[in-house]
Amino acid sequence: MEQSRDIETLIELMARLPGLGPRSARRAVLALLKKRGPLMAPLAQAMATVALTAKDCTICGNIGTAEICPICADDARANGEICVVEDVSDLWAMERGGAFKGRYHVLGGTLSALDAIGPDQLGIPRLVDRARDATEVILALNATVDGQTTAHYIADALAGLGVQITSLAQGVPIGGELNYLDDGTIGAALRARRQF
Amino acid sequence: MEQSRDIETLIELMARLPGLGPRSARRAVLALLKKRGPLMAPLAQAMATVALTAKDCTICGNIGTAEICPICADDARANGEICVVEDVSDLWAMERGGAFKGRYHVLGGTLSALDAIGPDQLGIPRLVDRARDATEVILALNATVDGQTTAHYIADALAGLGVQITSLAQGVPIGGELNYLDDGTIGAALRARRQF
Ligand SMILES: [Zn+2]
Ligand SMILES: [Zn+2]
Repeated sequence: MEQSRDIETLIELMARLPGLGPRSARRAVLALLKKRGPLMAPLAQAMATVALTAKDCTICGNIGTAEICPICADDARANGEICVVEDVSDLWAMERGGAFKGRYHVLGGTLSALDAIGPDQLGIPRLVDRARDATEVILALNATVDGQTTAHYIADALAGLGVQITSLAQGVPIGGELNYLDDGTIGAALRARRQF
Repeated sequence: MEQSRDIETLIELMARLPGLGPRSARRAVLALLKKRGPLMAPLAQAMATVALTAKDCTICGNIGTAEICPICADDARANGEICVVEDVSDLWAMERGGAFKGRYHVLGGTLSALDAIGPDQLGIPRLVDRARDATEVILALNATVDGQTTAHYIADALAGLGVQITSLAQGVPIGGELNYLDDGTIGAALRARRQF
């Protein structure tokens, strides 16, 4: 091959990122090679730092650089409202909307007998514990079959705790995924949330 | 914001790569965060290594990790054939085709009065020096107005040296850029090269 082994390795690793194939990874690496000082070195440094320091928040499952994420550590946020999301990307999407001022619980997936993902894998017992002290649990799962099945399971698990259970309503299109919605739609869906 | 400052910085730097916007950069960083051990750490390491060691070949302008790139250092390649390309990406595209077994000269752009890019910036005097010992110079510039203007300038500069001057012919579509051609087309264009 025409380039060095190290550059080949870099292209192969870049090609494993979502949205980048072998061709676009090569393009990205070439762009980095032409901006070694201003872009490549700082990017390598930032990535190494995050790879070393990133942690799953022990309370909510958000990814940050501390044991407790900035949201769980923020006293200004309502402790009594817990928004349940499937993935960290959904939490980030909610935060971009900026409409929610409570806390989160990141499931990390949905219930799946096929993939042997049960309530324990999704931290649902932990969520039930947290919900004892909460006033409202907002089920902000994707409007997919798996998401809604999991939402119903969680609603059942929370029944009898005296906590209000709501779900995002108006605005989430059927089959849609939170991560791909615009910020305004998420805000509207949150404001119009209804009894689950 | 919901994520840590370090993660924000990483997303901002990733978004500066070609083909990645803010949204896809976020998606890529999330994928990395979920594969910190198997993907993020090795990628950071590979990038740091290349950022530190990458060099422009002092002979041809290819980017590698040594003063002299593997192509210029390869005694099995014909020293008497010099293929002139605009960009390192074009050299890589030629090599993927695998049809050319000579050496390269990477211009790093095209002549442009507007951008004050003259023959010196493109290493054309250096090319003329190398061409004195060569038997053939293949002008493999993009089939654009700027590419062809530059090709004609180089052909004039080489005139009288007794070196054969050819150009890629059949197969390169009008207005097309080498980097986006399939390997077979590049090979065919090389085999059918004609007197310039
Ligand atoms: Zn947290
Ligand atoms: Zn070289």
